[in-house]
Amino acid sequence: MSTWFTEKQTENFGITAKIKRSLHTEKTDFQQLDMLETEEWGNMLVLDDMVMTTQKDEFVYHEMVAHVPLFTHPKPENVLVVGGGDGGVIREVLKHPEVEKATLVEIDGKVIEYSKAYLPEIAGQLEDPRVEVKVADGFMHIAESENEYDVIMVDSTEPVGPAVNLFSRGFYEGIAKALKSDGIFVAQTDNPWFKADLIRQVYRDVKETFPITRVYTANIPTYPSGLWTFTIGSKQHDPLEVPNERFHEIETKYYTKELHQAAFALPKFVKDLTE
Amino acid sequence: MSTWFTEKQTENFGITAKIKRSLHTEKTDFQQLDMLETEEWGNMLVLDDMVMTTQKDEFVYHEMVAHVPLFTHPKPENVLVVGGGDGGVIREVLKHPEVEKATLVEIDGKVIEYSKAYLPEIAGQLEDPRVEVKVADGFMHIAESENEYDVIMVDSTEPVGPAVNLFSRGFYEGIAKALKSDGIFVAQTDNPWFKADLIRQVYRDVKETFPITRVYTANIPTYPSGLWTFTIGSKQHDPLEVPNERFHEIETKYYTKELHQAAFALPKFVKDLTE
Amino acid sequence: MSTWFTEKQTENFGITAKIKRSLHTEKTDFQQLDMLETEEWGNMLVLDDMVMTTQKDEFVYHEMVAHVPLFTHPKPENVLVVGGGDGGVIREVLKHPEVEKATLVEIDGKVIEYSKAYLPEIAGQLEDPRVEVKVADGFMHIAESENEYDVIMVDSTEPVGPAVNLFSRGFYEGIAKALKSDGIFVAQTDNPWFKADLIRQVYRDVKETFPITRVYTANIPTYPSGLWTFTIGSKQHDPLEVPNERFHEIETKYYTKELHQAAFALPKFVKDLTE
Amino acid sequence: MSTWFTEKQTENFGITAKIKRSLHTEKTDFQQLDMLETEEWGNMLVLDDMVMTTQKDEFVYHEMVAHVPLFTHPKPENVLVVGGGDGGVIREVLKHPEVEKATLVEIDGKVIEYSKAYLPEIAGQLEDPRVEVKVADGFMHIAESENEYDVIMVDSTEPVGPAVNLFSRGFYEGIAKALKSDGIFVAQTDNPWFKADLIRQVYRDVKETFPITRVYTANIPTYPSGLWTFTIGSKQHDPLEVPNERFHEIETKYYTKELHQAAFALPKFVKDLTE
Repeated sequence: MSTWFTEKQTENFGITAKIKRSLHTEKTDFQQLDMLETEEWGNMLVLDDMVMTTQKDEFVYHEMVAHVPLFTHPKPENVLVVGGGDGGVIREVLKHPEVEKATLVEIDGKVIEYSKAYLPEIAGQLEDPRVEVKVADGFMHIAESENEYDVIMVDSTEPVGPAVNLFSRGFYEGIAKALKSDGIFVAQTDNPWFKADLIRQVYRDVKETFPITRVYTANIPTYPSGLWTFTIGSKQHDPLEVPNERFHEIETKYYTKELHQAAFALPKFVKDLTE
Repeated sequence: MSTWFTEKQTENFGITAKIKRSLHTEKTDFQQLDMLETEEWGNMLVLDDMVMTTQKDEFVYHEMVAHVPLFTHPKPENVLVVGGGDGGVIREVLKHPEVEKATLVEIDGKVIEYSKAYLPEIAGQLEDPRVEVKVADGFMHIAESENEYDVIMVDSTEPVGPAVNLFSRGFYEGIAKALKSDGIFVAQTDNPWFKADLIRQVYRDVKETFPITRVYTANIPTYPSGLWTFTIGSKQHDPLEVPNERFHEIETKYYTKELHQAAFALPKFVKDLTE
Repeated sequence: MSTWFTEKQTENFGITAKIKRSLHTEKTDFQQLDMLETEEWGNMLVLDDMVMTTQKDEFVYHEMVAHVPLFTHPKPENVLVVGGGDGGVIREVLKHPEVEKATLVEIDGKVIEYSKAYLPEIAGQLEDPRVEVKVADGFMHIAESENEYDVIMVDSTEPVGPAVNLFSRGFYEGIAKALKSDGIFVAQTDNPWFKADLIRQVYRDVKETFPITRVYTANIPTYPSGLWTFTIGSKQHDPLEVPNERFHEIETKYYTKELHQAAFALPKFVKDLTE
Repeated sequence: MSTWFTEKQTENFGITAKIKRSLHTEKTDFQQLDMLETEEWGNMLVLDDMVMTTQKDEFVYHEMVAHVPLFTHPKPENVLVVGGGDGGVIREVLKHPEVEKATLVEIDGKVIEYSKAYLPEIAGQLEDPRVEVKVADGFMHIAESENEYDVIMVDSTEPVGPAVNLFSRGFYEGIAKALKSDGIFVAQTDNPWFKADLIRQVYRDVKETFPITRVYTANIPTYPSGLWTFTIGSKQHDPLEVPNERFHEIETKYYTKELHQAAFALPKFVKDLTE
C-alpha cells in the first residue's frame, strides 16, 4: 500500500515513512494525535504532524534523557517528568533503584491512553506503584512545587502548541525553585542544524539560573537532522564529574557509562552555540 | 516550485528535499550523476539516487574521515584517498602541514568535473600542487601499490554500483599491503540502523588484517539515519592513544580534539556489532 | 496529518491524495485491499494500490457502465455483473424496472464485505431480493453459462492480478455464448493515454465475436488520465440507435440521454485505435 | 533520479510527475515560471506551480479551444487570443484558411520566450506572417478594442495571479464590445469537480451579456480532474447549429466534427451548473 507519512521537518526538508495503517487519529483538546503503524519504525506516535516516538528508535531518547541526570545525581529519590505521556522516560527512571517516587505530569491524557494501547513496551510501566500519573499542565505543576524534586526531566514537544511555555526563562526559574538544593534538571532542546537559535537561547536562559549548565547530544534517526540536544541545569552536581562508583549496571541499548561522558563532547558548531 | 527529490534510504523510509532546480543530470559510465540545487542544503551531489554530499553539511563527513586518522598517525606524509571525487576529503587533508603528497583516485571523472563546477568550496583544492588526481579504479590502484602510503581513506559510495569491491576482505588486504609498516586506513562504513550486518562484517574483515581496529561515528543529517560509522584499521597507532602534543590547531566546524576521542564511544547497540 | 496515498498510474506519473485514516487493510486471497478515508474523495477502495472507487466520483463509472447497455437492450430482464463487488453497478442496474434478476459474481468476498461496511451508499442494494451475489470466479461462471443473460457487464480491475483472464479473447467468446441471441455486453477497457494497445487489442478481439462493437468514454477523475473507455459487444442492438421512446426517466448524476449518444463520439486519437 | 513535481490541484489532492531535469526556472514579473523535462509528458510548462501545457497532451486543449468557435463562426478573419503565450492556440487558429490575422496578447513575455525555446512544436507558428504578438495586458487590450474581432479566445491561467481580471463580468462586457456584431468568444473555465462555483458564476455572467451561451468539455489528463470546461458567448452563431458544409478537413488529434457536437452534451452534474 503506497501510503506515506511525511514530516516536513523544515519548510524544505523532511522524512517520509511508508505506513501500513493508521491505528488512531484524533484531535485532542491540545493537539492532533496520530498513531501510525509504519513499515520501518513499527508503531509511531505523531503529535501535530511531528514524530514523537517510534517502537524502533525510542530507546535512544528515553535512555539519554533519563540516565544522564539520574547517574549525575548521587541519590535521585524523587523524580518529576513533565510531558512524556508515552511513558518511555518513566520506564527508564524506574531502572534506578534509588528512585522512590516518579511523578508524570502530562497535559494531554489522550497521549497516555493511546500510548498504553499501541506502545505497550514503552508505556507499560506507568502502572508501577512508584509512579504517580497526573493529567495536568506541567508549567502550573512546576509553579506550585517548591524544594521537592531531586531530578526534573522535561520531555516536551517542540516549542509550539502546548509546549510553548516549556521553553521560557520563567519556566527554568520555576524548575529551580521546584528542585531541592542539589537538584538537576534536563530538557530536550531540539537540533542544532535547524534550530541553532533555540539552543543558544535556552543555554543562556538556563545558565542564568543554574550554576552548572551543560549540553549533550544523542542520535535519534526519526528526529530532525538526527542530532538531538539536551540541556542540563544543575545546582551542584556536574554530569562530567560523576564518580566512577556511582555508575551501576542497567540494561540499555544506547546509553553506556562511556557515552555518558562522550555525549558532552560537542561538534564544534554546536559547542559554538554555548559560548 | 513543488519539486522534491526523495531518497529512499530503505524500502520504507527516506528523506525528501525541495529543489530549486536541477543543475546537471547525466548517466556517466559508472552511475547516474545529479547535481541539484536544494532549498535546505544548497547544492547537492546525488549518485545513483543517493545523496553524496551537500554544501550545508559536507563538513561533517569530510572532517571526520580525514582528521581522525591523520592526527592518529604521527607523521602522515603520503596520503591516498580512494573515491572522494568531490574533493572534500582532500581539502581537509591539506590542512595538515605534514602532508607532502595527497593522491586522489576516483573512478568517475564526471564526479570531479561537476564537483568543480557546482561545489567549488568543496572541490577547490584539487588543483593544489601537493595533490595528484587520477581517474582510475581505486581497487586496481590499491592492488598495484606496496608499502607506499601513511594513510589511506576510502571515501566510497555505499556497497552498490562501482563501490561494491571496496567492501571486500580482499580489498582490506590490498590496503594493508599498500600501507607502510605503521600505516592507517579508514573507510566510511554506513549506518547501524539499517546496515548493521555490513558494519559487523566489515569490522570482522578489517580485524583479521589489522592489529588495531576501531569504529567511530559522526552525525550527518543527509545520510541514512543521520548516524554514520567509520572503521579504522591501523598497524601500530591507536586512534584512542594519540598523545596530546600531537594535536595542533586546525580550522574545523565539526571535528575537535575532544570529539576525536568521544566519537569512539559507541552507542550500546553499535558497540555490540563489534563484539 | 500529512499522510498521502499515491497511486503510480504509470511508472512516471500518478495521483496523490491526503488521507485522514486507513479504515481497513488486508491481504485477501486475491489481492491487497485497502479502504482509506480521504479528505478529497471520501472513502476510497484501493485494490493492489489502484483506486477502484471513491464516494465522491463513483457515480460516473457505475452509471456509465450500467445505463448505456441497459437502455440499448429493449428488455433487459436477466443481468450479470462480473466483478463489481462494491455493488455500485448493481445499484444502477436496479434502477431499471425491466430487470427481474441481477447476478453479481465477484471473486473476492472481502471486497463485498468491506464495501458494505465502508461504502454503504454504493453497496447498499446488494441485499435487494432481485439480486443474487455469488463469490466465485467470473471466468468460470461465464464458461458454465449458455444463452442465459440479456446484458453482461464486466466490472473488473485492470488486467493484472485476479482480472487478467477477463481481457482475453476466450473470455469474450464465453460471454457471447452466455448471452441470449440479442444479448449485449460491456467491459471497462482502461484509458487511451497510457493503455492504447490494450484498447486496440480488446476492440479487435470483441469485434471478431460480436457484430456490433462500440467504444465510449466517461470522465473519472481518480482513474488514470481521467478518460476512461468502455467497449460494448452486441449481437443485435446498436447503442447508437436506441429509439427515443426506449429512454425513461432515471435519477442520475452523470448519465443523460444526450450523453448516451455523445459518449460514443471519440477523440480522434481514440477513434484511431478502433480502425 | 527520484525527483518528482507535485501539483496540488486542491489542498488534498494532486498529480505527481517524475522529472528528468529542470530546464528553466525563473520568477518573472508576473509569476513563477518553470520548464520541466518530465518522463511521462515530455517538456512541461508550469506557472505558479500549475501545469499549463505538456508536449504529450497539449493538443487537446489547443484544438478544443480553437476549433469549436472557429468552425462556429462562418468566416473568422480576425482572431484574438488573450494569454496563450505558449503559442498552441495560435498554431491551431492558423489551420483555418479564413483567418487573415491572429493577434496574441500575452502579459508575460517570458512565457513566449521559453515556450519558443523548449516547446518548439507548440510555439513554432508564432513567427507566421499572419500573427501579431503583443506583450501586453489582455484586459487593457480588450478594453481598448471595439467592433474589431470575429473570434476572441481567452487562454488564461486559473483565476489567480495575473489572470484574476479575466474571470470578471466587466471583462466579458469588454469582450462583447471588442467583438464584431456576429462575434464569438470562448474562455477556458476550469473543472466542475473542484470549481463548480466558478463555472456557475462565469456561465451566469456570460449569459447576461451574450444571447447564446454554451459550455463544452474536453479531457485533459494533466489538468485538475481531467475534465475541463470551456464557455462560449456568441452574438449570433450557435455552436450547436453549425451547417455541415461549414466543416472542412483539418489535421487534428482530438477534435472531430462529431466531437464538436458531442462536447456540448454535459454530464448531468455539470449541466446542472448552467441551470
